Amino acid sequence: MTYELYYWPTIQGRGEFVRLALEEAGADYIDVARESEGVAVMLRMMEHAGHPPFAPPFLKDGETVIGQTAAILLYLGARHGLAPKDPEGGLWTHQIQLTLSDFVAEAHDTHHPVGVDLYYEDQKGEALKRAKAFRGSRIPKFLDWFETILARNPAGERHLVGRSLTYVDLSLFQAVEGLSYAFPKATARALKTSPRVAALHDAVAERPRVKAYLASPRRIPFNEEGIFRRYPELDG
Amino acid sequence: MTYELYYWPTIQGRGEFVRLALEEAGADYIDVARESEGVAVMLRMMEHAGHPPFAPPFLKDGETVIGQTAAILLYLGARHGLAPKDPEGGLWTHQIQLTLSDFVAEAHDTHHPVGVDLYYEDQKGEALKRAKAFRGSRIPKFLDWFETILARNPAGERHLVGRSLTYVDLSLFQAVEGLSYAFPKATARALKTSPRVAALHDAVAERPRVKAYLASPRRIPFNEEGIFRRYPELDG
Repeated sequence: MTYELYYWPTIQGRGEFVRLALEEAGADYIDVARESEGVAVMLRMMEHAGHPPFAPPFLKDGETVIGQTAAILLYLGARHGLAPKDPEGGLWTHQIQLTLSDFVAEAHDTHHPVGVDLYYEDQKGEALKRAKAFRGSRIPKFLDWFETILARNPAGERHLVGRSLTYVDLSLFQAVEGLSYAFPKATARALKTSPRVAALHDAVAERPRVKAYLASPRRIPFNEEGIFRRYPELDG
Repeated sequence: MTYELYYWPTIQGRGEFVRLALEEAGADYIDVARESEGVAVMLRMMEHAGHPPFAPPFLKDGETVIGQTAAILLYLGARHGLAPKDPEGGLWTHQIQLTLSDFVAEAHDTHHPVGVDLYYEDQKGEALKRAKAFRGSRIPKFLDWFETILARNPAGERHLVGRSLTYVDLSLFQAVEGLSYAFPKATARALKTSPRVAALHDAVAERPRVKAYLASPRRIPFNEEGIFRRYPELDG
């Protein structure tokens, strides 16, 4: 069965966490909104589905429509060996993903602290303040937490959970990629005291399927419409 | 087995979604941080647990420690008949909870748009702007979505999922409670066009165990330290 992924076609955004899992799994999928008329199809599905997703990304697998990034990864992880098989390990992996979701939402809010319906330019003053707090206390706090989890993994510090790759390793890779794009100075500083996180990021980038994906046209470059945006005035 | 719930002892906050599920389930639990020395115990667990939660709430069930509100509810829902038994229904329920989590995070950010490490008083100007956007577009958008889900539930519009109560009904009740406390005018306005949401809220409040809980000293009153805060200047 070919999966159908629905997400905005011009950004990595939250959809990228799903794309990375599909790519690493070697799963057959169509990135629907990147095809002709795809965005219109996506918006119609959001309007009319029996289980309407609140927002993209969402995944269609046969008749099943799943929204919310973390829920999609919970679903894919179990089907493609990207999560532990035991329930407790699966829930722990999911808990890490939910914390990553919180981190990503905070990264987004640095450029949209007042509201998603306003332009960045209309909330730049507030963004400067929020980004300062994000760089100064939130990036270090989150990266410290991931560093601790890697250090405490009884199966070794190369993965967040267990002895092999799970979807949260891919997601942490993507979060570090995004942060390094948006806040290159602050992220480089924080990674110096999070060497295990830095090593995991580098190792994921070298996985054959991930590497091939990153070099392909399927990987949309970062830009200033996505979650992670490079506004130099917000870094420091 | 008695569950141990760990959450800040003076607020409803995110812990309240877990408390409501435990209460409705009639589960044995200890609200650890509300006992003497409980906060110190909670902070030590966050520091030293093998699976350290990033933030409260977290639940301890024997040797299992689970953080993230939505993950805790996923766990409890399956054990206490508060979620469908089939995997697809369970995932749909979880997806709704994750969307509720996003809604709650946005409600929180109305009074902390710049950063969680600063006081409300230091970001009041930004809060006025963010609350205006939240009232004007986000409350209606989220409530419309829940209204649509109730209307499309093939088993009837009294519940979000299936024909009986699930944890997301409890969570939507709590979100409406919180919004009605924090934004009484804006929420009353939005509920007028979301009659199914309003009816679900009222029905949950009348469930015997919920009703008994709400009248008990275990229910902490809303206050201005929690997620939902009544700052009259933010309503309108």
